[in-house]
Amino acid sequence: MLVVHKYGGTSVGNLDRIENVANRVAKVKAAGNDIVVVVSAMSGETNKLIDYATHFTPNPAKKEMDMLLSSGERVTAALLAIALQSKGFDAVAMSGRQAGIVTDDIHTYARIESINPAAMQNAIKEGKIVIVAGFQGMTKEGHVTTLGRGGSDLSAVAIAGVLKADQCEIYSDVDGIYTTDPRIEPKAKKLDTISYDEMLELSSLGAKVLQNRSVELAKKLNVKLYAKSSFNDNEGTLITEENNSMEEVLVSGVVLDKNQARVTLRGVSDKPGIAAEIFTKLANENINVDMIIQNTGTDGSTNLGFTVPQSELANARRVMEKFDHDIQGMDFDDHICKVSVVGVGMKSHAGVAAKAFRVLAASNINIQMISTSEIKVSMIIDEKYGELAIRMLHEAYELDK
Amino acid sequence: MLVVHKYGGTSVGNLDRIENVANRVAKVKAAGNDIVVVVSAMSGETNKLIDYATHFTPNPAKKEMDMLLSSGERVTAALLAIALQSKGFDAVAMSGRQAGIVTDDIHTYARIESINPAAMQNAIKEGKIVIVAGFQGMTKEGHVTTLGRGGSDLSAVAIAGVLKADQCEIYSDVDGIYTTDPRIEPKAKKLDTISYDEMLELSSLGAKVLQNRSVELAKKLNVKLYAKSSFNDNEGTLITEENNSMEEVLVSGVVLDKNQARVTLRGVSDKPGIAAEIFTKLANENINVDMIIQNTGTDGSTNLGFTVPQSELANARRVMEKFDHDIQGMDFDDHICKVSVVGVGMKSHAGVAAKAFRVLAASNINIQMISTSEIKVSMIIDEKYGELAIRMLHEAYELDK
Repeated sequence: MLVVHKYGGTSVGNLDRIENVANRVAKVKAAGNDIVVVVSAMSGETNKLIDYATHFTPNPAKKEMDMLLSSGERVTAALLAIALQSKGFDAVAMSGRQAGIVTDDIHTYARIESINPAAMQNAIKEGKIVIVAGFQGMTKEGHVTTLGRGGSDLSAVAIAGVLKADQCEIYSDVDGIYTTDPRIEPKAKKLDTISYDEMLELSSLGAKVLQNRSVELAKKLNVKLYAKSSFNDNEGTLITEENNSMEEVLVSGVVLDKNQARVTLRGVSDKPGIAAEIFTKLANENINVDMIIQNTGTDGSTNLGFTVPQSELANARRVMEKFDHDIQGMDFDDHICKVSVVGVGMKSHAGVAAKAFRVLAASNINIQMISTSEIKVSMIIDEKYGELAIRMLHEAYELDK
Repeated sequence: MLVVHKYGGTSVGNLDRIENVANRVAKVKAAGNDIVVVVSAMSGETNKLIDYATHFTPNPAKKEMDMLLSSGERVTAALLAIALQSKGFDAVAMSGRQAGIVTDDIHTYARIESINPAAMQNAIKEGKIVIVAGFQGMTKEGHVTTLGRGGSDLSAVAIAGVLKADQCEIYSDVDGIYTTDPRIEPKAKKLDTISYDEMLELSSLGAKVLQNRSVELAKKLNVKLYAKSSFNDNEGTLITEENNSMEEVLVSGVVLDKNQARVTLRGVSDKPGIAAEIFTKLANENINVDMIIQNTGTDGSTNLGFTVPQSELANARRVMEKFDHDIQGMDFDDHICKVSVVGVGMKSHAGVAAKAFRVLAASNINIQMISTSEIKVSMIIDEKYGELAIRMLHEAYELDK
C-alpha cells in the first residue's frame, strides 16, 4: 500500500514530537508500506518569521515572503528525515521544488498547476521514505512560492492524487471530525465517515481540522482522506465520496462561529446594480463577506444584510458610511454568532431546517438571519445564545447517539 | 561601479542589525552604484539547527543537513530584501540556486563548479539590488548543497568574480586585518593593504576574519577584496595582489595559535616509507596535522615532530601508541603554542627569521620547533610565553609604527 501522511505544526512542534512522528512513520514503513510524508513548519515558526518581516514594513513583498516562509517546512522535512535515518530507515528530504511541485506565480497564495512525480517515484522505488516540505512549490520560472495558510494539507492531497496513493492521512492535534465542538457540547461524537461536501461546509464554518482547498482537491482527485491525531492511535474520520449508507444520516454536525459581525442596510433602493456596487466596494477593500441575505422588497426598497469577520467590521463600516445614495440607514452588530447545521441528508428531507427553527424557538432564541444551501442551514442569533443553541440542536438531531 | 557586499552572522544577528545593513546597502545604491549583497544566517541560527539535528543522531546525513542549514541564509536574504523594499528600494532575494550557483555533490562541503549569472545580471540591469543567500548552491541534479563553514565568503567572492565586480567587501564585526591580536598587544595596527598570500597565512593561523578558501578564490579570480566592519565606517583592509610598495614591508603581522599540541617521535628509523605510514594512519583517523618537522638523522634514526589541534591529541596518541615498530619512544605535549611571523618581504630578506629567533632568545624563550615557508616563520614554544613572544615580536618588527 502507498500512503501519504501529513503532519501539522503542533504534531512537529518540538524535537520530541518530531521523534514521535518518526516512530509513527517508521511503523508504517516497517509494516511493508510505501510512504510519503508531508510536513508543516514547527508550530510558532511561521508566525515568528512573519513578525520578523513585518518589523520592517506592514506589507512586505510577497515574493520575498515566500522565500522567507518556505524555510520553515524545509527545516522540519530535513529534521524528520534525519530522525528516521537515525532509526536505520532510508529517508530522503525534498523541498517543494525537488518534489516536482509547480505552481502559478500568485505569491503567498499560489495554486498548484502540476506535479512532476519522477523524483518521488524514483525514491519510493529505491525503498526510501520520502519527506516533502509542505506549503510550497516553484513557478515555471524557478521562483519559490507558498500555497497560503494550511497549504501543507493541499501539498499532501495533491501528492496523494498524483501518486495515486491508497490513502492520505492528515495528522493534527485533533483525532477527527466531531458532530460539534466538544468544548461546547461534551456529548459531541466523532464521525467515522463524512462526505467531501459536508466537510467543506464544516470546514468553512470553522472546524479548522482540514483546509478547505485541500478538501476540494481531494474531492476532485477522489483522494481517500483521513483526519487523525498524531498524539494517539484513535481511528480518525474518513472523508470520502457520498455513499448509500450516508443517506440515512440526516445531519452530520452543528457548528458555532463566534467570529462574525452583522451589517444590515435598511431601505436599499430595489433597482439593478445597487448590490453589485456595494459588494464591489467591499471587495476592493479586501473585506471578506460571508452570508448575504436580501428579501424581496416592498415599496421599492428592501433590507440587505451580510456578515463579515469581526476584525473587518470597522473597515466595512468605513466603506459603507461613505456610501451616500440609495440607502436609508444602516446597523452594525458584532454581538452575534452563526450557528450552522450541516448534513448531506438534508437534500431530501425538507424537515431538517424546520426542526432547527423549532428548536431555537422553543428556547426563545430569536433568529436574525437565515441562509440555507443544499446541505447546510445557517442562522444568525444573539451571541450569548450560541452555546445553548449548539447543545439544543445537537440533542434534537440525536448526534450523541 | 558594481560592488559585492557580504555580511556575516553577527552583522545580521538581529532585526536592528539587518536594518543597519539595509541602510548601508541603500547608501551605496543611492550613490549610483550597482550592488549585490551576500548574507549569512543570523548568528546563532546555524548552531541551533545543528543542535536540532544532532538531537536525533551524532552523524546526521549530509544531504539532509544541507537542506536544513541552507534555510538560515534564505531567511536573512528575504528579510534584508524586505527591509530595503520598505525604504523604497527595489530589491530581490535569491537562494543560491536562483542566483545560478552550481556545485559538486560533496554535501556540507561542496565546491562551486560554475555560476550562471543571468538571473543576477538581469535583475541588476533592471536597477534592482540583488540579495543572495550565501553558503549554498545546487548540484546539477537539483540537490541543495552548502559550502562549509564560512562558505558565504566564498559565495561572495565567486559572485564578484563571475560578475567582474569592481570590488568585494566582506563585512564582519572586525574592521580589518591587524598586525596581531589587539587583545594581546594593544599597539596592534590595522593594515591598509595585505597580499593574498600573507592573508592566507594569517587566516590559516587563526585570524578568522576571512575564510581561507575565499581568499584562495579571490587570488585566482583576482577579486579586489576588502575586510570591513558593518558596525562603523572605518577604512578596512584591502587584500590584493602583491605590488611594489609591499616590498618595503618586511613583516605584515604576528599571530598566536594556542590551540596546538605537539607530538615528538624519538628514534624513528631513517628508512623510506616510515613517515608515509605514520601520516597515512593519522589521516585515516581524520586527524589534522599542521606542522611536520624532520631533521636529518644520525646513527640511522631521527626525531620526527608534528603538531595537531589540542582536541585531537588524544586521538593522535591512540593512533601512535599502536605503532609498534621503528620508533624508540614518543612525547605528547599540549602545553605549547605556535607563534608565527608573516610577511611577503621575508622572501628576499633572510634576516627576518633570524631576528625572530634573536628576539625570543633575548627573553629566554626556548624554541622547541621551527618551520618556515617563503612568507612565514612559525615557532613552537612553551604555552605560557605565547603572549609575551607576540608583544616582543610586534615591537621588534616595528609593527606599531
